[in-house]
Amino acid sequence: MKAAIIGGTGYGAIELIRILHKHPYLEIGSVVSNSQAGNSISESYPHLSEIIEQPLEKFDAKSLSEKNDVVFLATPSGVSSNLIPQLMEVGIKCIDLSGDFRLRSATEYESWYKHSPADDQYLKQATYGLSEIYPEKIKSAKLIANPGCYPTAASLGLLPILKTSLADYESIIIDAKSGVSGAGRGLSLSSHYAEINENIRAYKLGQHQHIPEIEQVLSDESDRPITITFTTHLVPMTRGIMCTTYVKLVENVTTKEVQEIYSEFYKNKSFVRVRPEGKVPATKEVLGSNFCDIGLHVDTRTNRLTIISVIDNLVKGAAGQAIQNVNLMNGWDEWTGLQDIPLYP
Amino acid sequence: MKAAIIGGTGYGAIELIRILHKHPYLEIGSVVSNSQAGNSISESYPHLSEIIEQPLEKFDAKSLSEKNDVVFLATPSGVSSNLIPQLMEVGIKCIDLSGDFRLRSATEYESWYKHSPADDQYLKQATYGLSEIYPEKIKSAKLIANPGCYPTAASLGLLPILKTSLADYESIIIDAKSGVSGAGRGLSLSSHYAEINENIRAYKLGQHQHIPEIEQVLSDESDRPITITFTTHLVPMTRGIMCTTYVKLVENVTTKEVQEIYSEFYKNKSFVRVRPEGKVPATKEVLGSNFCDIGLHVDTRTNRLTIISVIDNLVKGAAGQAIQNVNLMNGWDEWTGLQDIPLYP
Amino acid sequence: MKAAIIGGTGYGAIELIRILHKHPYLEIGSVVSNSQAGNSISESYPHLSEIIEQPLEKFDAKSLSEKNDVVFLATPSGVSSNLIPQLMEVGIKCIDLSGDFRLRSATEYESWYKHSPADDQYLKQATYGLSEIYPEKIKSAKLIANPGCYPTAASLGLLPILKTSLADYESIIIDAKSGVSGAGRGLSLSSHYAEINENIRAYKLGQHQHIPEIEQVLSDESDRPITITFTTHLVPMTRGIMCTTYVKLVENVTTKEVQEIYSEFYKNKSFVRVRPEGKVPATKEVLGSNFCDIGLHVDTRTNRLTIISVIDNLVKGAAGQAIQNVNLMNGWDEWTGLQDIPLYP
Amino acid sequence: MKAAIIGGTGYGAIELIRILHKHPYLEIGSVVSNSQAGNSISESYPHLSEIIEQPLEKFDAKSLSEKNDVVFLATPSGVSSNLIPQLMEVGIKCIDLSGDFRLRSATEYESWYKHSPADDQYLKQATYGLSEIYPEKIKSAKLIANPGCYPTAASLGLLPILKTSLADYESIIIDAKSGVSGAGRGLSLSSHYAEINENIRAYKLGQHQHIPEIEQVLSDESDRPITITFTTHLVPMTRGIMCTTYVKLVENVTTKEVQEIYSEFYKNKSFVRVRPEGKVPATKEVLGSNFCDIGLHVDTRTNRLTIISVIDNLVKGAAGQAIQNVNLMNGWDEWTGLQDIPLYP
Repeated sequence: MKAAIIGGTGYGAIELIRILHKHPYLEIGSVVSNSQAGNSISESYPHLSEIIEQPLEKFDAKSLSEKNDVVFLATPSGVSSNLIPQLMEVGIKCIDLSGDFRLRSATEYESWYKHSPADDQYLKQATYGLSEIYPEKIKSAKLIANPGCYPTAASLGLLPILKTSLADYESIIIDAKSGVSGAGRGLSLSSHYAEINENIRAYKLGQHQHIPEIEQVLSDESDRPITITFTTHLVPMTRGIMCTTYVKLVENVTTKEVQEIYSEFYKNKSFVRVRPEGKVPATKEVLGSNFCDIGLHVDTRTNRLTIISVIDNLVKGAAGQAIQNVNLMNGWDEWTGLQDIPLYP
Repeated sequence: MKAAIIGGTGYGAIELIRILHKHPYLEIGSVVSNSQAGNSISESYPHLSEIIEQPLEKFDAKSLSEKNDVVFLATPSGVSSNLIPQLMEVGIKCIDLSGDFRLRSATEYESWYKHSPADDQYLKQATYGLSEIYPEKIKSAKLIANPGCYPTAASLGLLPILKTSLADYESIIIDAKSGVSGAGRGLSLSSHYAEINENIRAYKLGQHQHIPEIEQVLSDESDRPITITFTTHLVPMTRGIMCTTYVKLVENVTTKEVQEIYSEFYKNKSFVRVRPEGKVPATKEVLGSNFCDIGLHVDTRTNRLTIISVIDNLVKGAAGQAIQNVNLMNGWDEWTGLQDIPLYP
Repeated sequence: MKAAIIGGTGYGAIELIRILHKHPYLEIGSVVSNSQAGNSISESYPHLSEIIEQPLEKFDAKSLSEKNDVVFLATPSGVSSNLIPQLMEVGIKCIDLSGDFRLRSATEYESWYKHSPADDQYLKQATYGLSEIYPEKIKSAKLIANPGCYPTAASLGLLPILKTSLADYESIIIDAKSGVSGAGRGLSLSSHYAEINENIRAYKLGQHQHIPEIEQVLSDESDRPITITFTTHLVPMTRGIMCTTYVKLVENVTTKEVQEIYSEFYKNKSFVRVRPEGKVPATKEVLGSNFCDIGLHVDTRTNRLTIISVIDNLVKGAAGQAIQNVNLMNGWDEWTGLQDIPLYP
Repeated sequence: MKAAIIGGTGYGAIELIRILHKHPYLEIGSVVSNSQAGNSISESYPHLSEIIEQPLEKFDAKSLSEKNDVVFLATPSGVSSNLIPQLMEVGIKCIDLSGDFRLRSATEYESWYKHSPADDQYLKQATYGLSEIYPEKIKSAKLIANPGCYPTAASLGLLPILKTSLADYESIIIDAKSGVSGAGRGLSLSSHYAEINENIRAYKLGQHQHIPEIEQVLSDESDRPITITFTTHLVPMTRGIMCTTYVKLVENVTTKEVQEIYSEFYKNKSFVRVRPEGKVPATKEVLGSNFCDIGLHVDTRTNRLTIISVIDNLVKGAAGQAIQNVNLMNGWDEWTGLQDIPLYP
């Protein structure tokens, strides 16, 4: 089978290429970049020299569908809402790595993203691709809205406790820290080395577009409306997200009991590793891999649960989960092409 | 006037030397390091070459008191509890940068620090040196327990709102991020470059020895017992602490109203800068300086206040505040020797 | 086939594990660490959790040879010189990643390494495992001295020009820059984060133990004694080596002509990529991969050739080349298990 | 006395502000930025909040000369060649931190900088401001061409040996490494955090515009034409330059003898520190300071001298040396406002 990648000069596409290159059943068909069409991708990314030398293509839905079996869209927000209708028209399955199809409500999208939403008829066809939670829906999906990086780390960290009756649903605070690659290869002062290095910066307080996405999945899974406090920080590293999440508990439980709830919840999941009591994961322990590692601590003085969940934002937070979803859609083992050990140190 | 520095080969001492070198009224008398006595400090720290070439001395309380007017102790925890009684005996004022005299309760100290506390009679004589909050007590103090780095950032961020009736006192969560220099120059896997670089790590969940110190000052200033949730993270940078602090509000107020409360609270304080509405500080904006910068955001959806407070852990979190305290003790302007602009970028 | 790894808690062993995990024909048999025997390796390296949980073993030559087909030694210098005789005794092939068997002269070893050399009878049996240069010898070797990280980058950069008559053999200067992981996981001030971050440091000027190794291979291949100037620098990154090498040319040639010499020299080599004229590689373009990328520039003003060669010190500079050598020894494609795209960004 | 700063939103200007703020005799009069005129500089640089709140001004030569006694130009190349004639017309002294007036030959400028040079009549009036070498000329100068960052580190490292008869003048190779701040605050892929972090990159091989500047000063001081090989590298740090310089010696001398030549050469110079035999400086040992530290090693095997010279590119390589020059011009001690200890760690 062949896959097309749209958005061929961004970090998301590059990570898709890296993983697809080692996928046994899925091979790269087309790489699309309107701005660089005709050039080799290795001109922009010399690490691909002598590996991927095929020319970048212009977007053309029909031609893509003829040469490929599935399309990954790794485009900035506001782009795939225009491209996906054309692609679905020609009958090809789409995995959208942008935020355009994640929120069910077009109004909500517009109020957080500050530009026009996708057409409602396509929004309705989208399946939210949080692989560990919605494997069945994903298997039969034609359009996957691949989750955001923060929502992946936050949801996987929170859902096991929210599915019990132990959590105070109004108490959720997610303090998130991210490396810089999440903002893409575009140029801005907030990705300038001298401004980021030896620095931590909080940004978009109360305004991050991942807030409604996290609330949507938490609300869906808790059967009640959930409102969260969510703060994002930029830390001086390239890859990695850590969510430090705080939840008030309504009963007295020990760390060990919570740890067992989580281990049980994720017992058949290839990519979620729950650390034993007394241990918490660091972001580097998942670098370059599709893992989401989770550590837990109940503070008996305040009866608050602290959840540490970490992912590589470009893998489990983007390209890796996208490929995991395609694996599910095709009935392959979900870890196909994704079983590598994290790069450490 | 002359100052002695004990603990002469640690980062705290080195930072004291850097600042004292530009202090107009206070000059370095003795630098003490038992392990390196007789050597020049520039052998361990070549950046001091041709600037500080005096030999390191052995500790001797009497001789120190004859040659100096004040003593800074920048020693690991558990050391100054033994040295300070000897120094007070010979009548010299002491500024302790370690945690040994910060907690009023010896029992509390022992349970968090896991070794023997200072003698009660000396604990009673210690003044907690949070300069902005206790300037009067500091002026007449003979022994200053200089605040910890995290407690300084956390307390300065929290106290203005706690002094109003707006805060839910049971809701306080402090998510703290620190550079690596806070752990000192000692060798451990957790300061190994390859383990820290491109990584975030949470540590000592619910067990950090700064928890009782923060609770003590918050409780004192709120006239009620305060229990907090406090999480510390190591981020890949050398200097800087950010506390992201969450407090539930019991009334509806706007960010602007809270910003005004903070501006008013700190209006005559040289070293606390409250950012205007819509702005939050980054750690690099205080690098190398004694500033504590604060930014505020009220999330009207959850009625929670998020406070961002940043310091340089080695300056306002250690050596800078120590010198600010000596300035206060001597009736000098508190910013004497400390008025430099942060190093940016 | 099964491989044993000795030195199981160092970065070299960890990287061997990462690569062997994806090798189709070679599987991890034993991981040996005398100091940690009985423990799971994931206690020291949580990124291996749920992947490698087998207990670490004590060294026992006989038992290793029964359970494994080949042994990798990723031990500090001075260790494998003792272990390898025992292993060869029981007839198992050895790949030594340390420096113990790289220098043919025991005297030379002692004078640079400052401790006892391996026994001469074993030194004589060792094959220097620079895969691109000695594939035939490697195929039939029983003991491989896997090249050092700096010697790999330096030799691959220099050999094509030295094999022509264009180079002034007395003019060679290699200015090398390395990330910190090359020094291993051991604790020292020179791997302390706060000392390395935001810093460059030159070290061991004229005394680095890789000098005689580089000179040996350059001399062998040039059929004359070569003496080099070699300077090593530590830069604030975890992985990566760049050699910037300067050679005076004895004839006038263009960059393009030199580029063609290199392209021709490496035309059938999977892992050496020669950049086109006008381009030079950066270390990150080979991160996590077995590539050695090379860029060239002839300065017509001085008639000097500048060669930029980069590798990942833990892959092509250690574990990757070791596995490439085992591939050669077994008649497998040399890129087996090593064909991954570098991790970028 | 008052100083104007032109180029008020770049890193050079920001560093001038930082140092002038602590200068006892020189105070900031005007800060000029045409693009941001009317705004407070702290909007772009919040670390200056409550310290520098004066509005940015538009450029006006006459008004600047009325309010200020000296002008610093920290503008991109090609700007000050237009502004300085206007400023000299109104009789104010100028310190140009850009490259526009450093090369005596307009033709040479055009061929390396690829745009129009300054007018010859002004080029003739410029004094090259390498403070340690030309103090007398600087004292009476009206227009200072402040040296580039690389030329400062390279020249101070090379001149003592070039002034003896020990050096082979045709053998000079300078391998230079720089932090990212040298490229300024402008946006480009080569200052994007994710592209720089965990990476070393060589750039502009044989084409860097500092080559003719270095050659000019070396030739002047050696009384013969000097041609060098010069390679620049970008390393993942914000500040700091290291030049590793190689010179063939024509006689046999020891490291100790060379060290004594250097110590003698710089014995009355406040800002050049020559390390003792066996020690070389790291860039962090001069961070934030005006020092240039130098270490030396003679390799007796090749009779080559290796010189390590380090500076902070924004201080001794730009703003600090500019202020040192104004100190000289005014008969003040050259270290006025510049005597701070480097920030370590």
